[in-house]
Amino acid sequence: MNQRIAIIGASGYAGQEVLAIIRRHPQMQADLVMTGRPDHSPSAPSHSYAQVVQPLDLDALEYVDGVFVCTPHGASAKLAQEALARGTKVVDLSADFRLSDASVYEKTYNTTHPCPELIPTAVYGLSEHKRHAVKQAKLVANPGCYPTCVLLPLLPLLQNGLVDLEHDIIADCKSGVSGAGKTPSETTLYGNVNENFKAYAVGTHRHAPEMHEHAGTDKIIFVPHLLPMFRGMFATIYLKPKAGTTPADALACLDAAYAAERCIRLYDRGQPQLDRVQTTNYCDIGVSSCGDRLVLLSAIDNLQKGAAGQAVQNMNLMLGLDETAGLEIQ
Amino acid sequence: MNQRIAIIGASGYAGQEVLAIIRRHPQMQADLVMTGRPDHSPSAPSHSYAQVVQPLDLDALEYVDGVFVCTPHGASAKLAQEALARGTKVVDLSADFRLSDASVYEKTYNTTHPCPELIPTAVYGLSEHKRHAVKQAKLVANPGCYPTCVLLPLLPLLQNGLVDLEHDIIADCKSGVSGAGKTPSETTLYGNVNENFKAYAVGTHRHAPEMHEHAGTDKIIFVPHLLPMFRGMFATIYLKPKAGTTPADALACLDAAYAAERCIRLYDRGQPQLDRVQTTNYCDIGVSSCGDRLVLLSAIDNLQKGAAGQAVQNMNLMLGLDETAGLEIQ
Amino acid sequence: MNQRIAIIGASGYAGQEVLAIIRRHPQMQADLVMTGRPDHSPSAPSHSYAQVVQPLDLDALEYVDGVFVCTPHGASAKLAQEALARGTKVVDLSADFRLSDASVYEKTYNTTHPCPELIPTAVYGLSEHKRHAVKQAKLVANPGCYPTCVLLPLLPLLQNGLVDLEHDIIADCKSGVSGAGKTPSETTLYGNVNENFKAYAVGTHRHAPEMHEHAGTDKIIFVPHLLPMFRGMFATIYLKPKAGTTPADALACLDAAYAAERCIRLYDRGQPQLDRVQTTNYCDIGVSSCGDRLVLLSAIDNLQKGAAGQAVQNMNLMLGLDETAGLEIQ
Amino acid sequence: MNQRIAIIGASGYAGQEVLAIIRRHPQMQADLVMTGRPDHSPSAPSHSYAQVVQPLDLDALEYVDGVFVCTPHGASAKLAQEALARGTKVVDLSADFRLSDASVYEKTYNTTHPCPELIPTAVYGLSEHKRHAVKQAKLVANPGCYPTCVLLPLLPLLQNGLVDLEHDIIADCKSGVSGAGKTPSETTLYGNVNENFKAYAVGTHRHAPEMHEHAGTDKIIFVPHLLPMFRGMFATIYLKPKAGTTPADALACLDAAYAAERCIRLYDRGQPQLDRVQTTNYCDIGVSSCGDRLVLLSAIDNLQKGAAGQAVQNMNLMLGLDETAGLEIQ
Repeated sequence: MNQRIAIIGASGYAGQEVLAIIRRHPQMQADLVMTGRPDHSPSAPSHSYAQVVQPLDLDALEYVDGVFVCTPHGASAKLAQEALARGTKVVDLSADFRLSDASVYEKTYNTTHPCPELIPTAVYGLSEHKRHAVKQAKLVANPGCYPTCVLLPLLPLLQNGLVDLEHDIIADCKSGVSGAGKTPSETTLYGNVNENFKAYAVGTHRHAPEMHEHAGTDKIIFVPHLLPMFRGMFATIYLKPKAGTTPADALACLDAAYAAERCIRLYDRGQPQLDRVQTTNYCDIGVSSCGDRLVLLSAIDNLQKGAAGQAVQNMNLMLGLDETAGLEIQ
Repeated sequence: MNQRIAIIGASGYAGQEVLAIIRRHPQMQADLVMTGRPDHSPSAPSHSYAQVVQPLDLDALEYVDGVFVCTPHGASAKLAQEALARGTKVVDLSADFRLSDASVYEKTYNTTHPCPELIPTAVYGLSEHKRHAVKQAKLVANPGCYPTCVLLPLLPLLQNGLVDLEHDIIADCKSGVSGAGKTPSETTLYGNVNENFKAYAVGTHRHAPEMHEHAGTDKIIFVPHLLPMFRGMFATIYLKPKAGTTPADALACLDAAYAAERCIRLYDRGQPQLDRVQTTNYCDIGVSSCGDRLVLLSAIDNLQKGAAGQAVQNMNLMLGLDETAGLEIQ
Repeated sequence: MNQRIAIIGASGYAGQEVLAIIRRHPQMQADLVMTGRPDHSPSAPSHSYAQVVQPLDLDALEYVDGVFVCTPHGASAKLAQEALARGTKVVDLSADFRLSDASVYEKTYNTTHPCPELIPTAVYGLSEHKRHAVKQAKLVANPGCYPTCVLLPLLPLLQNGLVDLEHDIIADCKSGVSGAGKTPSETTLYGNVNENFKAYAVGTHRHAPEMHEHAGTDKIIFVPHLLPMFRGMFATIYLKPKAGTTPADALACLDAAYAAERCIRLYDRGQPQLDRVQTTNYCDIGVSSCGDRLVLLSAIDNLQKGAAGQAVQNMNLMLGLDETAGLEIQ
Repeated sequence: MNQRIAIIGASGYAGQEVLAIIRRHPQMQADLVMTGRPDHSPSAPSHSYAQVVQPLDLDALEYVDGVFVCTPHGASAKLAQEALARGTKVVDLSADFRLSDASVYEKTYNTTHPCPELIPTAVYGLSEHKRHAVKQAKLVANPGCYPTCVLLPLLPLLQNGLVDLEHDIIADCKSGVSGAGKTPSETTLYGNVNENFKAYAVGTHRHAPEMHEHAGTDKIIFVPHLLPMFRGMFATIYLKPKAGTTPADALACLDAAYAAERCIRLYDRGQPQLDRVQTTNYCDIGVSSCGDRLVLLSAIDNLQKGAAGQAVQNMNLMLGLDETAGLEIQ
């Protein structure tokens, strides 16, 4: 029998992507597709085939098995709390429960945390690294897109001591514009994105503390850029390997960590590129070198493995389903 | 009276861009617009308004004042030699005279250098740094696009000792696809470029030795990427500053070097982005920081300051014209 | 048990799309994935995750249930004949069997028809209009993308006599560049497609005779254009309705014809646009008016309903499967 | 000595384009660069190199020779009136003075005309057809982009009686998204434009009455579409020629009308495409046929010949300058 699912905040790109995945999911059905506010009646869809999104109805959450909270940080925490109080399991796609220290959250997001008491109960849902905890969790904090793209290639090398942390790690990251959300703005205007490229939030991006906490080191220098395309995220990661560590060693280390993973692909020849991961839940990882640096190349679809795909992967684990059910991994 | 100009290899993107600049140049006229081979009669243009490109006619070069050689490396050196023998001044846009050591050239380009005896006579035409030498030169090696984009922001900091060379310098570079040339190929196919992004030639790109020679250090780790757009090049450069050097110090150093330069713009607020330099000869430079790294952001149009624009800038110097005549700098 | 399927000509966009659909198809498996020539050993895929395509092996076709022939016109007919001789059912995606008159074919495609004797056995697979014949067929000629996009909105109005054929019908059509195939060329070069738009083959496109034959009238004026995008096809069709016929009448006529169709969606408010049909097998149709003309708007994905999707739809019918099995129609 | 110029409404795409042209114009200088409202202090530019736009200062207009009014319809008329009262010449880029009948204007734009008394004094500035009137005018109504693109190829054929007006004329038009302006909206959101295509305002677009008035016939069926690109406009025009009129006759007619025009190019082989007119003030026109219809292909840059370029062309005429001074026509 299908698991009954609610989506809160279903109008944005992440919410829409969750909905699209669930529609094809063999064991989930989207029973509730809602905005984030009870008083918010979204305008009728502009054509017959668009999904109708309902105003928020918290009490209806009693009757579902799992909830995806796709509202902005700040708003999500309270909604997650309400959902938990009604006995459902929650994957929160916002940043509200990603940082274990509320004071770091409050400084980073420049707001008071709405329910810090819930933070210790949340599991950081980097699925491949937190599988067992996710299975037990009632509340999963779905990782940010940039941290997912950087941590997946980096964690095994860090955990196996292959990185010389006397030198910093450069994570030069590039994202398609869907990462900036669906609200029309200067940032998302066609005329400003098309045939353009820029760095942004240099030294100040909110995903840096998340990356540092879950990498276990603040030696990661993270600079994001905006690509003139819609969907996809690419990280070029430069690290100094411990003496004697070759690219082949690094690849072997990653292979040992990920050989059995169905959502991670290692490249032993060729290199990742975004068109191979778009609309899939894959993280593609390549290992190369330049001078005495190892260069890790990591590619994800920011709306899939970087958001909705990993969220469904986590919900699958929480509900005891096959981990990749409904996901695009061919 | 106008300077008479020849373009050899006028069918490619660089040659076309040189031609477009010269057409608007108040003191140059494109007298000879030729392919790179005497036996090569290009197919008639596909419509009435395309420029007719003639087969190569070396002897006609006697009657021109300056020649732009826009043919591939390997072919260019001999053509430059022929042109010099006929008394004209030459800007070679290929790589043939960029490296002072023929053996490095031969290893990098995997070919024998056609006329190594000319190498010592060539001036590396990074205009802002080699102005006086260029003015005296008969043969200028026009810099590669990536070296131009990386060296312009980096050189003043290196020359003033602001960079801690105990740590490497990461130059994460991104280029529009016009850099790959006009020949239809897997690399330039619309379906492979559009909505895609990848790194390429990691650790093996031919512009690395050029960058290292003219920076005076091989501590630069250079990785190029291909952007899903046509025109523009962006470098994100991470360097460890000498102790006590702030971003403001770095900006001041660049300002001291470039305040009078008409083709370089420093950003004291905001940051460079590609749409501000496209179709211009500007190099836009921003200085920021992330952790304890300085982050330099550098943006050029790869076909202008990265190729044809700088080539005309050099030819202007060689012919005693105003340095920026004909160039787009508003 | 799964139906065993072969794809001949699996390297092009259409072949790749057929393969991608079959991989997700619950009742088909891609047993043979081949090029169009026995002596053609394609270069190894450029990375680990690309599908290996084998040289053509005709005898292996004995063991499959259905064959998709995705090779160019001229080559396809013979391959289809060989497959039929081995007892399999064939959907040919080329133009070889779309025209009932070999002499029209030969004039249009400027080549001798390789096996005109097969033409009478072929069914023109516009699925919604030829369902019963397709179910009985051993050989289906899969319609061209432009004819599919134009005929689906037009046929019911023609068949019900709502069109005033004293006036011509204008079919102004626009296609993404994937319609031009995967071979690198001037036409498919990123620098020529991006930020560009043009008409092509005005008055001479090979899909016109196909459109005329299957519409039953040569009053259709068809002009194709190339869009700066990858995937999708849009037709704007201007017709003079019979006196007294309103847009509402036309919509009612289409609704009567297509209400039960799962791959056709009619718009009673809003209008079709390409992003609603991309990667799906839908044909979206809107009806509007301008002056005294009815304006039909029709949108398909040229690689899906315009090629591989409709091909699978036809093969489903031929093999007795659910008509939309494996197809993207949400 | 340079002509002193003001731009009102300089923040939008048209205003920015006028400004860019004037900066390169050898005989104009942009003395006043203003918003459309005295109380409107635009936010500081986001970087050092952006042009500062001042709040509106009507009295300053006394000291300029010409004003470009680039504000929306409705607002423009009053501003034009104020400028005229201060003795300057005005090119209004809005629709306020394009229609000679105020009641048609009011119905089309659903607003009261702010100063109908000025309408008879305005000249419709389709430069090639109204040259002498423009030279005498104090107020020029700059034509809309779609009417410019359609009227230029069509007018000579209509005026010479080569069109059979028993049949309607279909003008299927396609525009880049810059035509939708710079305000972030659903229409201009990158995620909605990129890889998408649609018709819009079918049967209701406001440029239809303008087209009909200045063509002298309402037999033109005009449907606009939105292209996934920034800059450029293309019209495919289907007309029934008078009996015996061939494409060659039509081309000869256009040649007779436009042979001396520096901003119009006729194609006697090949066909227009948008990348040949982008950033130029050209209108490129091709003549072809399909069935018994003549097919005119017309390409302009909507921001140049379709707006700012033609506006400068008109101002050049009004101020007694060379008609194409400052314009990009190579």
